Amino acid sequence: MTPDNTPQKFAAEFDFVADCHAHGMGGVLHTPCQRAEALSELAGCDIRVKLENLQATGSFKERGAYAKLMSLTADERARGVVAASAGNHAQGVARHGRRLGIDTVIFMPVGTPAIKVNATRAQGATVELAGADFDAASKLADEYCAAQGRVLVHPFDDALVMAGQGTVATEMLADQPDLDVIIVPIGGGGLASGVALTAKRIKPGIEVIGVQADLFPAFHNLFHNGQRPVGGMTLAEGIAVREPGALTRRIMTGQLDDVLLVDERTIERALNLFLTRMRVLPEGAGAVALAAVLAHPDRFAGRKVGLVLTGGNIDTRLLSSLLLRDLARSGRLARFRIELIDVPGQLSAVSRIIAEAGGNVTDVAYHKTFSDLPAKVTYIDISLEAQDAAHMDRIHAALRQDGFKVEFADY
Amino acid sequence: MTPDNTPQKFAAEFDFVADCHAHGMGGVLHTPCQRAEALSELAGCDIRVKLENLQATGSFKERGAYAKLMSLTADERARGVVAASAGNHAQGVARHGRRLGIDTVIFMPVGTPAIKVNATRAQGATVELAGADFDAASKLADEYCAAQGRVLVHPFDDALVMAGQGTVATEMLADQPDLDVIIVPIGGGGLASGVALTAKRIKPGIEVIGVQADLFPAFHNLFHNGQRPVGGMTLAEGIAVREPGALTRRIMTGQLDDVLLVDERTIERALNLFLTRMRVLPEGAGAVALAAVLAHPDRFAGRKVGLVLTGGNIDTRLLSSLLLRDLARSGRLARFRIELIDVPGQLSAVSRIIAEAGGNVTDVAYHKTFSDLPAKVTYIDISLEAQDAAHMDRIHAALRQDGFKVEFADY
Repeated sequence: MTPDNTPQKFAAEFDFVADCHAHGMGGVLHTPCQRAEALSELAGCDIRVKLENLQATGSFKERGAYAKLMSLTADERARGVVAASAGNHAQGVARHGRRLGIDTVIFMPVGTPAIKVNATRAQGATVELAGADFDAASKLADEYCAAQGRVLVHPFDDALVMAGQGTVATEMLADQPDLDVIIVPIGGGGLASGVALTAKRIKPGIEVIGVQADLFPAFHNLFHNGQRPVGGMTLAEGIAVREPGALTRRIMTGQLDDVLLVDERTIERALNLFLTRMRVLPEGAGAVALAAVLAHPDRFAGRKVGLVLTGGNIDTRLLSSLLLRDLARSGRLARFRIELIDVPGQLSAVSRIIAEAGGNVTDVAYHKTFSDLPAKVTYIDISLEAQDAAHMDRIHAALRQDGFKVEFADY
Repeated sequence: MTPDNTPQKFAAEFDFVADCHAHGMGGVLHTPCQRAEALSELAGCDIRVKLENLQATGSFKERGAYAKLMSLTADERARGVVAASAGNHAQGVARHGRRLGIDTVIFMPVGTPAIKVNATRAQGATVELAGADFDAASKLADEYCAAQGRVLVHPFDDALVMAGQGTVATEMLADQPDLDVIIVPIGGGGLASGVALTAKRIKPGIEVIGVQADLFPAFHNLFHNGQRPVGGMTLAEGIAVREPGALTRRIMTGQLDDVLLVDERTIERALNLFLTRMRVLPEGAGAVALAAVLAHPDRFAGRKVGLVLTGGNIDTRLLSSLLLRDLARSGRLARFRIELIDVPGQLSAVSRIIAEAGGNVTDVAYHKTFSDLPAKVTYIDISLEAQDAAHMDRIHAALRQDGFKVEFADY
């Protein structure tokens, strides 16, 4: 680890933000840092979760936005601000811009889902849909900013934004002073830098560990001198950042104790566990700190671990399909492909056996005309629910016992 | 309101429980009573939510169970306890029985979902599956209790259980002393009685309002001298109780300021809002206090309202279908039934128009053989996703403009 002088260098910004925080942080919520009993029992360590999904806009991003806006001069406030974001940062800037009477313009790429555009407009911002992707929108935001003499509110690479995100750690250590370690997601690095600097200022011995999705290991590569490819479809889209900030990478290199990677399967499992065992809703990026504990149980065994659940803005349709996948994986939902002889009464026989075994049919597809099977043989696809995997196996066995050829289809 | 002497009559029980609470309540969590910004803006009042879904077993029921178990003599503890429940009470008794070293036997009706049986066994209880329904299981529990000389832990009609549930109010008023009103669901009445007595002991001027599902208005009928029928399939199954307790009905009559009803549609909406706007997961019964605010906006306008989110144990499959229903209602999911002339290229034309309009097809059913339409005419059912209702309308219009007959099918 390289020694660095960042704690001293940014003392003014952190002092300024500490003062904002002491004065109520403009209505940014002091969220609970909550013991999670069931998750702790499952993971073998003592887990407390910082519930930033409870913020008005559903994520911690309000903190950095508020801190940056508060630092502006009267003249800068009067000229207004600009940000580029299709996500949580947009809403944070918009909300606190309106509350502070600062005009905000948000650049979002063309094709941004209307639900995100509308949520940002509802917080009072002017939204400019421009540019084919995030990088293009971001470039247009920079140009607009320069031309209009406005201030840019960067999502992460800014000392005040970073210090604002650090108030997450201020509250965690106020509410749970005995934490041994804080685990925090890394996208651009604003939250991780801010939390590391703030936590170590308050409690020098504490460990701060960053987490990235293994499809987007940009900072992990820098920290561990790795060469992993960066890119892909990740559930943790909120931290799918190709490059950390110039400022944040330097601070994280000096301040973080380690950087871990988590795979998609573990992120999905962590998201489901937050929802079903703690009954709180994270977005994909909000679940990676728990994923890190699940992926490295020995490392955290018996320790007091603070997880930052960064946000809860997940698409409803995605959430619904994650729930169904989880049911399928646990054996409560399955699809049987059943071979039938093409004589009357076969569908009736199959239905009766499933009903008598207590299965609940949810979908049927019956293929008579086309099939690669011999003539006079056909098949049926039946999707059904059971109480658990053992019950599903009993239904399966009951069908086979009556002479039907059944295979579990991929769901 | 009839005057009554219950506050004095149960002072000993409430003092005993206050002492348990001061000593940490055996690990029952002091859950947050959290400001809900987005819900407050939506409802026009200042909403704080008591998040009892964060308890280890996912509901407030642990409180009453713990209080009752703590009140037992050493001899009673050694003989063990019995409860009848297929839900949250079972897990509360099981968990704190094990933690206190008290043997617990839980009676559940035959056919109780394996997932609930397993969750209760995982908390350390012996589960007896017996009786065709809850009443039968409950009767068998009573008999077993008498035969074995064990103590019954009633889910609500017991002064200690009631006082235990009342600690919900103790914590709410400690964390949010300025509340004007507390809204609490009523099933058997244990929580409502305990909260009313406790809240008024701490803050005599506070209003306490009970809520029932309009399909199960058992106590509402008593309170308002009504004759509404009781029964039906409600989303709020946790409070689908046909009769309040003998003790709790007396206390609620004397202590509650009002009893409101909420319909299924509003309960479903409240559940969705908790999930998507506050990012916490309630079960149906856990959403009725918010439903009451939504149904009576004038009554609560501008006031400081404490809602008890009682629990978050909802079936994953039910939750998934609620999410999809919500998407369909908001216009983001729809099914089009499109009439086609039976000539080649029609499916291709329809698909192209939908794709060009930015719609995302999720399901196709193409009916060629059977139809009540004239020969040479057939139809296709296409399910698709759009960004919002306006976008869905544009896709619809694009199809009609190219001459297709399209109707929205019921989802």
